[in-house]
Amino acid sequence: MSDTMSRITLARRPKGAPVPEDFKLETGPLPAPAEDEVLIEVTHLSLDPYMRGRMDDVKSYAPSVGLGGTMTGQGVGRVLASTADGFAEGDMVTGMTGWASHACLPGSEVRKLDPTLPPSTALGVLGMPGLTGWVGLNEFGKPKAGETLVVGAATGPVGSMVGQLAKQMGLRTIAIAGGAEKCRLATETFGFDAAIDHRAHDDAASLRNAIAEVAPDGVDIYWENVAGQVLEAVMPLMNVHGRIPVCGMIAWYGGSNIAPENQLPAMWRSILVKRLQVSGFIIFDHWDQYPAFLKEVGPKVAAGEIAYLEDVAEGLENAPDAFIAMLKGGNTGKQIVKL
Amino acid sequence: MSDTMSRITLARRPKGAPVPEDFKLETGPLPAPAEDEVLIEVTHLSLDPYMRGRMDDVKSYAPSVGLGGTMTGQGVGRVLASTADGFAEGDMVTGMTGWASHACLPGSEVRKLDPTLPPSTALGVLGMPGLTGWVGLNEFGKPKAGETLVVGAATGPVGSMVGQLAKQMGLRTIAIAGGAEKCRLATETFGFDAAIDHRAHDDAASLRNAIAEVAPDGVDIYWENVAGQVLEAVMPLMNVHGRIPVCGMIAWYGGSNIAPENQLPAMWRSILVKRLQVSGFIIFDHWDQYPAFLKEVGPKVAAGEIAYLEDVAEGLENAPDAFIAMLKGGNTGKQIVKL
Repeated sequence: MSDTMSRITLARRPKGAPVPEDFKLETGPLPAPAEDEVLIEVTHLSLDPYMRGRMDDVKSYAPSVGLGGTMTGQGVGRVLASTADGFAEGDMVTGMTGWASHACLPGSEVRKLDPTLPPSTALGVLGMPGLTGWVGLNEFGKPKAGETLVVGAATGPVGSMVGQLAKQMGLRTIAIAGGAEKCRLATETFGFDAAIDHRAHDDAASLRNAIAEVAPDGVDIYWENVAGQVLEAVMPLMNVHGRIPVCGMIAWYGGSNIAPENQLPAMWRSILVKRLQVSGFIIFDHWDQYPAFLKEVGPKVAAGEIAYLEDVAEGLENAPDAFIAMLKGGNTGKQIVKL
Repeated sequence: MSDTMSRITLARRPKGAPVPEDFKLETGPLPAPAEDEVLIEVTHLSLDPYMRGRMDDVKSYAPSVGLGGTMTGQGVGRVLASTADGFAEGDMVTGMTGWASHACLPGSEVRKLDPTLPPSTALGVLGMPGLTGWVGLNEFGKPKAGETLVVGAATGPVGSMVGQLAKQMGLRTIAIAGGAEKCRLATETFGFDAAIDHRAHDDAASLRNAIAEVAPDGVDIYWENVAGQVLEAVMPLMNVHGRIPVCGMIAWYGGSNIAPENQLPAMWRSILVKRLQVSGFIIFDHWDQYPAFLKEVGPKVAAGEIAYLEDVAEGLENAPDAFIAMLKGGNTGKQIVKL
């Protein structure tokens, strides 16, 4: 058993795309587990796009990596020593080891792996990307058999999970991917019903026509990994009551190709980073709730607990003028015409 | 009892803001109720912004009014004659009478009014605008005591309902309204905790500062009636897990003040008209679902029913290069580093 460990630290904050000089390989003494800790020899490390955000010193949903600090990340590995209940030497486990050959983690933050599965699956298909696809599809995509799903970056670890789960639930699944090879993977390996190569289309309109051809019933769920031209292509194809889980927006991460007047990328970023829920609704879908509303609010109005204002115009012949004035903001309360 | 009726028809489709010449007052014979119908003498007619959309010949969530057809709308009135069960002469009722002195409607589409309340309340505070505020707040705003709500067009029939309901649920309520008189109404009549006059601010940043002063804990629910500068002001103040029910976007209805590069207004319109649900999410909020995910998907991976791809780099020292390549799209499957 070696008595040194190695780790990769953040040497400086990248400007735009990271370069090798932003990282540094360092070595040091092997740590010993403190109370309730597990010393792990890392066998596999996960690399994920979210790590790019951690390299910047900006407020996001998680703290950034400090300069000189170990790059964060999930790893799997073998227990070398443990003072935590439930872990013994030789156990295969996973936890946030960081980019390092070894890590000491509290037992409560380490999980034992199912020995019947390859350990690396805990980082991908059965790790964070897999969970992302599963949670996002079920909780925010709300899939129903017979619906149509479009997935951007469809062969990635998240997109391929979303597509396969949706297909198994009886949805029509359409992959957007870059290049013929990824399109082949999408249909042959991941079972998408159709795959569209976004590189084969010069603009959003052309991409839209290609999607429309394989989505004759429109799109019910658009899984947003990409934004940019793919979003622009899909939006007009969305069906009423469609859902858009916003999981990523690769096309807009750099920011260089965004017109200053375009407020959509900033909105999309807010929706993602702040986990906002934006819901369009129209009351004509909800008349069934009218009796419940009347039962709750009617007595409050009768008791004077809910105030209301009415602007009353007199005579049917004056309805057009009252309507025209109302559209210009001329009224204060609810506009009524008394006949 | 008169034997004629009058109605207001759509004489031509408006270009931009409607003008009086777009409407026509017509008279005709009083209809007689067919089987299961109610003949109503209209006493009050509701005027609502949605009617403007019905005057255009474009696909929206409801059919447009035909040229020469009666303007659609909800009315209340007195039953003059009925062949429908449950309705008798003299009953006060409401239904989609249109802009007309009289209407024959199927009994199934007519509702009797509570005689203890003024009939016109069925068109406003206890009608479509009231229901809109109640459903939208509860179902899409998901209010919780202690949270902060910002409402655009806060003294309107929808906004004032939203503000009062939220206040009664223990939220801090902030009104955005145009002019000192409406701001006074917002706080004195509708009980908002604070009211901001958007006309007193030249740009979104100034309006944002004013809102921030009265929303020290940020904004949890932004009730969208207005869009434009108000939306721009509120967005950076939104808290994590905030909700935005999109009910209207008055500032963008005309379309003339929108930069061609700005894709947000079209997105907002799609969200509203198609009743889309856009949900930002980040997997770190959902680790509690990991056991359920593993229980469902783990066996599928073991059985080969869920395919996955891994790109494996060898050696910790090669993690930076693999990471840099991955960010450029160089990988196909889940990127792993084998140590």
